[in-house]
Amino acid sequence: MSGVADIPGGVTAARGFRAAGVSAGIKASGALDIALIVPDAPAAGAALFTTNQVQAAPVTVSRRHLERSEGRVAAVIVNSGCANACTGQNGQLVAERTAHYVAERVGCQPHEVLVASTGVIGVDLALAKVQAGADRAMQALSTDGAAAARAIMTTDRGPKEHAVEVRTPDGAFRVGGIAKGAGMIEPMMATMLAFVTSDAQVDPAVLHHALEDAAATTFNAITVDGDSSTNDTVVALASGASGVHVSKDRNYGDLVSGLRVVCHSLAMQIVRGGEGATKLVAIRVSGASTTDAARQAARTIANSLLVKTAVHGGDPNWGRLVAAAGRSGVPFDLSRALVRIGPVILFRNGQPHDGEAPRAADYLQGNELEIEVNLGTGGPASFTVWTCDLSAEYVRINGEYRT
Amino acid sequence: MSGVADIPGGVTAARGFRAAGVSAGIKASGALDIALIVPDAPAAGAALFTTNQVQAAPVTVSRRHLERSEGRVAAVIVNSGCANACTGQNGQLVAERTAHYVAERVGCQPHEVLVASTGVIGVDLALAKVQAGADRAMQALSTDGAAAARAIMTTDRGPKEHAVEVRTPDGAFRVGGIAKGAGMIEPMMATMLAFVTSDAQVDPAVLHHALEDAAATTFNAITVDGDSSTNDTVVALASGASGVHVSKDRNYGDLVSGLRVVCHSLAMQIVRGGEGATKLVAIRVSGASTTDAARQAARTIANSLLVKTAVHGGDPNWGRLVAAAGRSGVPFDLSRALVRIGPVILFRNGQPHDGEAPRAADYLQGNELEIEVNLGTGGPASFTVWTCDLSAEYVRINGEYRT
Repeated sequence: MSGVADIPGGVTAARGFRAAGVSAGIKASGALDIALIVPDAPAAGAALFTTNQVQAAPVTVSRRHLERSEGRVAAVIVNSGCANACTGQNGQLVAERTAHYVAERVGCQPHEVLVASTGVIGVDLALAKVQAGADRAMQALSTDGAAAARAIMTTDRGPKEHAVEVRTPDGAFRVGGIAKGAGMIEPMMATMLAFVTSDAQVDPAVLHHALEDAAATTFNAITVDGDSSTNDTVVALASGASGVHVSKDRNYGDLVSGLRVVCHSLAMQIVRGGEGATKLVAIRVSGASTTDAARQAARTIANSLLVKTAVHGGDPNWGRLVAAAGRSGVPFDLSRALVRIGPVILFRNGQPHDGEAPRAADYLQGNELEIEVNLGTGGPASFTVWTCDLSAEYVRINGEYRT
Repeated sequence: MSGVADIPGGVTAARGFRAAGVSAGIKASGALDIALIVPDAPAAGAALFTTNQVQAAPVTVSRRHLERSEGRVAAVIVNSGCANACTGQNGQLVAERTAHYVAERVGCQPHEVLVASTGVIGVDLALAKVQAGADRAMQALSTDGAAAARAIMTTDRGPKEHAVEVRTPDGAFRVGGIAKGAGMIEPMMATMLAFVTSDAQVDPAVLHHALEDAAATTFNAITVDGDSSTNDTVVALASGASGVHVSKDRNYGDLVSGLRVVCHSLAMQIVRGGEGATKLVAIRVSGASTTDAARQAARTIANSLLVKTAVHGGDPNWGRLVAAAGRSGVPFDLSRALVRIGPVILFRNGQPHDGEAPRAADYLQGNELEIEVNLGTGGPASFTVWTCDLSAEYVRINGEYRT
């Protein structure tokens, strides 16, 4: 019997992992700022990194380590409060020495350690603080991952975690994770980090493929403001402690399902927690010839300031949806297109149904919304992107002078 | 002796044109809502239209008319208050009948009339009101173009016009124009319209080429919110009344110069008048291998919410500029990149100069700003895009429920 069921916990819900979150003084406030995740034995690891050409030092170091270790990970250390991005050679050195220091304590090779950072760009990361934090975190490791979820936060409204148990014909395994959102209340912070663990037994290459599959419709299908950061990182680790073997031929779909449920939950928590956000909006584009075309149109709509402000104001402004789809660069046939806001069709076959606007306005008073644009080209493909509304609060948050 | 000098006036500053602006009751407020521009004899005409796949009825009709007449234009009629977009077959009919009605009054072929509309999308345009307005405008035609500049406004803060006299070895000719901005205070309005006249004597094909050249670095180099509309139209007319002949071989550069000065002025007026805008920002990208690459990076930076909110808040947040350039999809070398805010260099050769941030913050208190990002790839190309800041007022304006 197969199935995916929610269970409590986060990054330590899967067997074979311990984690800790401690304060190392990187954040001036004294809040938790170092998270450490350590599998009981080196785990299979896979990661996805930002596609921004400007990549923070921890991103380049972790990418290199994962290649060199061929997907073997003995520890992940994360700091918040400083992105260690645009920090030159010194930044590279700090990231490398952090991995080295943790490796000595854990008893592994430096390239079996992944590092991630989030916080202010262009500020040097104090190695001594990270090292002291790593020592403290080693002492605090436990199977309670709650502190780790808090320690990766920057200005998130709260910690983000989710875990599931996946039943397969071979037995059950678990997947759990933590994430931080693009909370930019302290300006120059713009990083999405997520760490997902599983006790499935799986090769790094298969884990990587499954993570890519899961991320495509979750982490890679959300947008708060269209800005991708220099530090974005999603890491998946698999301990094998469940004894359930996953390969391309066996239980692969179950692993993707488990990862997808956890990644979806974390991704939705990130969008809900977008700066100034009051509404979570699913933008579904259908009637496209390819998934890529549907994704492109959905992203264009989801990032349109006019759409995001209209949603914020509860304005069923279908003209803005049509105009955004029309400039997205994918085939669009106005004479057969359809716009639906919740259950209300406002435009179909080239004709407005403006009499329905008040009903759609009522629907927009909710805070979990679904909007559909059918491109009218008769294609079979669809894609959903999740976004949030754009409020005056967003401007206030992101316009404050940081020094 | 060559030279371009500002002169008073707008769309009737060039000899051989009359214009009018009247109220036809399309706007509920009773404000001016029909503009008519009529050359003394059919003029050479050229036009650029929105690249949005969703095109309003007046756009498709004007495009067809200009092709059929081979660039001969006897009248341009514009209405504000209704975009006549997404209005199906009926919308096409109204645009065609408008042209037909004006042609009978002016005494020309219907395809020698161009039509343009701006206002609410998805609402039917009342033909009877347009016809009555056309009658009144015919009576009001004069060489004072001020009323026409007001009649094309939607929620612009004021009329936008500019005119110049261009001296050539063959004598002087004039170029003048009017424009309306993307004022979307009444939601679902999002149109840029501009009408430029000249008394140079020039073929439609040469005029079209000169208009494209001038628009590339003016109307096509501005952004308020990255949303292109269904109705955007720029029309140029040349009466020949100056007797100064322009061809590809003779005085062409002078015509482009004149058009460029007028289009630049109108474009800057549009950005300054962006909803909620308090600052005009020139985003200059240099060090690119091609102009296209520079343009793409500049547009990405100019449309970044994080950049626009930082500018609004006076925050010299160079990390956001670097991150936006890094995700723009063009080659970028962080180790040789440079970021300059006004006179202050904040990042060079991979190293932050954060000590300079307070000086840059002082500079950002101004309301005409220049920001430069050198991509560090050593290329010779650069491009400047003009944008405005993003304020809470923008959100308020665009979030109000329209019904």
